[in-house]
Amino acid sequence: KGTTVAWEPNKPVVIEEIEVAPPQDGEVRIKIVATSVCHSDLYHLFENIHKDGFPVVLGHEAAGIVESVGPGVTEFQPGDKVIPLFLSQCKECRFCKHPKTNIRIDAMSPLDSRFTCKGKKVYQFSGTSTFSEYTVVRQINLTKIDPAAPLDKVCLLSCGICTGYGAAVNTAEVKEGSTCAVFGLGAVGLAAVMGCKNAGAKRIIAVDTNPDKFEKAKVFGANEFVNPKDHDKPISQVLSEMTNGGVDYSLECVGNVEVMVSALESTVQGWGVSVIVGWNMHEFSGQPIKLITGRTWKGALFGGFKSKDGVPEMVKAYMNKKLMVDEFITHNLTLDQINDAIEMMKHGKCIRTVLNVSPQ
Amino acid sequence: KGTTVAWEPNKPVVIEEIEVAPPQDGEVRIKIVATSVCHSDLYHLFENIHKDGFPVVLGHEAAGIVESVGPGVTEFQPGDKVIPLFLSQCKECRFCKHPKTNIRIDAMSPLDSRFTCKGKKVYQFSGTSTFSEYTVVRQINLTKIDPAAPLDKVCLLSCGICTGYGAAVNTAEVKEGSTCAVFGLGAVGLAAVMGCKNAGAKRIIAVDTNPDKFEKAKVFGANEFVNPKDHDKPISQVLSEMTNGGVDYSLECVGNVEVMVSALESTVQGWGVSVIVGWNMHEFSGQPIKLITGRTWKGALFGGFKSKDGVPEMVKAYMNKKLMVDEFITHNLTLDQINDAIEMMKHGKCIRTVLNVSPQ
Ligand SMILES: NC(=O)c1ccc[n+]([C@@H]2O[C@H](COP(=O)([O-])OP(=O)(O)OC[C@H]3O[C@@H](n4cnc5c(N)ncnc54)[C@H](O)[C@@H]3O)[C@@H](O)[C@H]2O)c1
Ligand SMILES: NC(=O)c1ccc[n+]([C@@H]2O[C@H](COP(=O)([O-])OP(=O)(O)OC[C@H]3O[C@@H](n4cnc5c(N)ncnc54)[C@H](O)[C@@H]3O)[C@@H](O)[C@H]2O)c1
Ligand SMILES: [Zn+2]
Ligand SMILES: [Zn+2]
Ligand SMILES: [Zn+2]
Ligand SMILES: [Zn+2]
Repeated sequence: KGTTVAWEPNKPVVIEEIEVAPPQDGEVRIKIVATSVCHSDLYHLFENIHKDGFPVVLGHEAAGIVESVGPGVTEFQPGDKVIPLFLSQCKECRFCKHPKTNIRIDAMSPLDSRFTCKGKKVYQFSGTSTFSEYTVVRQINLTKIDPAAPLDKVCLLSCGICTGYGAAVNTAEVKEGSTCAVFGLGAVGLAAVMGCKNAGAKRIIAVDTNPDKFEKAKVFGANEFVNPKDHDKPISQVLSEMTNGGVDYSLECVGNVEVMVSALESTVQGWGVSVIVGWNMHEFSGQPIKLITGRTWKGALFGGFKSKDGVPEMVKAYMNKKLMVDEFITHNLTLDQINDAIEMMKHGKCIRTVLNVSPQ
Repeated sequence: KGTTVAWEPNKPVVIEEIEVAPPQDGEVRIKIVATSVCHSDLYHLFENIHKDGFPVVLGHEAAGIVESVGPGVTEFQPGDKVIPLFLSQCKECRFCKHPKTNIRIDAMSPLDSRFTCKGKKVYQFSGTSTFSEYTVVRQINLTKIDPAAPLDKVCLLSCGICTGYGAAVNTAEVKEGSTCAVFGLGAVGLAAVMGCKNAGAKRIIAVDTNPDKFEKAKVFGANEFVNPKDHDKPISQVLSEMTNGGVDYSLECVGNVEVMVSALESTVQGWGVSVIVGWNMHEFSGQPIKLITGRTWKGALFGGFKSKDGVPEMVKAYMNKKLMVDEFITHNLTLDQINDAIEMMKHGKCIRTVLNVSPQ
């Protein structure tokens, strides 16, 4: 079946025919209808500091239809409309049973891959591997959604939108009337802006080194805009001066360790809360005094949503027009144009490109 | 009047006669009855990375009696029993009015000093300078306490005990039945142990590289003891194995940037909370993934207590036998033996040494 294989880092991915073995115990094989490109795919392809995990089928933001189920799977049936989940939820372990977290042991470990291409084993990525016509996932990495939902839109709820939105409402717990700063205005950051807005924030300061992103940020509720390149001072100082001491909440949606520290330092002493959303495997360096003076530093995966429970709720919110999704989509392409989608994201030319893989 | 002057870093402090100018607007001159040595005094003397701020009168943990008040001071009168506060509380700024923080702008800035010795200006330290028969402080750096309180005991509530206790109950907000780790078992760490115990923690793991401290930790409620030197593995791994994944809360009461990061990494993913209490001006290096997987990193000054309000309450708790204080005092000396007290703390030979300065 048609798929895309990243044979090695820093190279275009290649369209290939691939063998997708049938689902085993507790697994489900799905036909991907639509998938979109997230920066985490690019991180693996271009910045993976370990340089292992190749060849691999990338992709983790998608929606599709169940094709077949493995032994013991009762939750899904062929024909179900589903969204794959890079963060699993088993509902049985002490983490899934804890009301306040969506993290599990092995929450993000990939499945022993069911892909073979040219006689070679190809790795699964993020428990999902959605840049493919067919993929096999564990049932704990899958959730059923409203069958009326347009899959070429709600695929964005599979990662970026939930990640940013939840970081604001679940993790930062933004309060009404507060002042927020969002660093990075890709889909994740824009969703964080939307989360701040829905939580009632009064001032939402959108920060990006690419000023082309500001117009879109306005759509989601940002009302002030800062390009760090326009200032000689550190951005934390700029924000501190704009807000008489710092913002109440900051969200790092870039994936840069220096920006993570700037975001922390941009919050007000006493009660400032900063949330790391961006992904980076390098180390940050920070000053203890920034925390000792009353700031809180947190992080979140998938916006703190328990994935299997949260995604259908977010789909519902979209269907009830309580959540914007269409506005994140700037381009529609097909799976064989994937390298164009990757290049556009790399150069900041898109928010989300949806790749149409199969008819709904 | 008799005082102690630290003329330069890394040298014994010197007993001197000093001139203590009368209190000015909003200031109070107090006679120190008892003062104790805290690690923060040693930090300034031996590890101050800036090497400025000398000559200085050190000391910030004390209790005394008001001798005279400056113009405009109505809150205090000569004869009042008082405790000096290194962290000020004005009750008027937006920080003091915020219910959730004890940090202010300039919360720790020293007073333009009222000390002169041998014709030279001597700096004030921490807004207090208590290693002295007399000292002048701003009224926002002073609180009145129950006149029945024994000053040679409650002087410990001026810093160390409130700092550690509050870090557990106010900042970490330790919950009943939880598992806690306290790094560093000086007065601050032991008070954190007491805070965890009073909050109902089930397992309290006391961590110190000096095993002489474990016996005392047991008195305050610790029930497990770990010396990092007994292990080849990183201490975070040791704790993680002891607790099936990490502790719910950790408190860094050492003042070492590597220990701060270890303490964070010792908490369980998903909901672990780590609080920095120790003081250090160097930078830490940490991995974003430790936060992204659901940990929270905080810090606190003075245990999150609003100082003027909190200290009299803590004195009351002690008088009502709800709080241990006497148990922290391992030595009683006089002000002229201060270098012995400093040396004992430096070499881990004491918990708190109370220096008796003047009769009550
Ligand atoms: N924690 C999670 O669960 C999770 C999930 C999805 C994505 N992510 C991460 O979130 C981050 C954002 O993802 P995305 O898909 O929105 O990426 P994106 O590439 O679309 O957006 C990133 C934005 O950051 C901006 N930027 C770059 N450097 C900047 C700087 N120094 N200051 C301010 N802005 C800067 C870019 O111009 C761009 O607009 C990535 O690191 C991604 O890996 C994390
Ligand atoms: N944030 C605040 O408001 C505040 C207030 C007071 C003190 N402090 C700071 O709190 C810290 C503790 O103060 P104290 O007076 O209790 O000091 P202390 O010197 O009495 O105690 C420190 C303890 O840490 C132990 N230790 C040293 N290295 C260690 C390691 N690697 N692992 C585990 N334990 C180790 C020592 O053996 C000692 O028992 C200091 O850094 C002090 O400056 C902060
Ligand atoms: Zn993603
Ligand atoms: Zn689980
Ligand atoms: Zn102290
Ligand atoms: Zn104030």
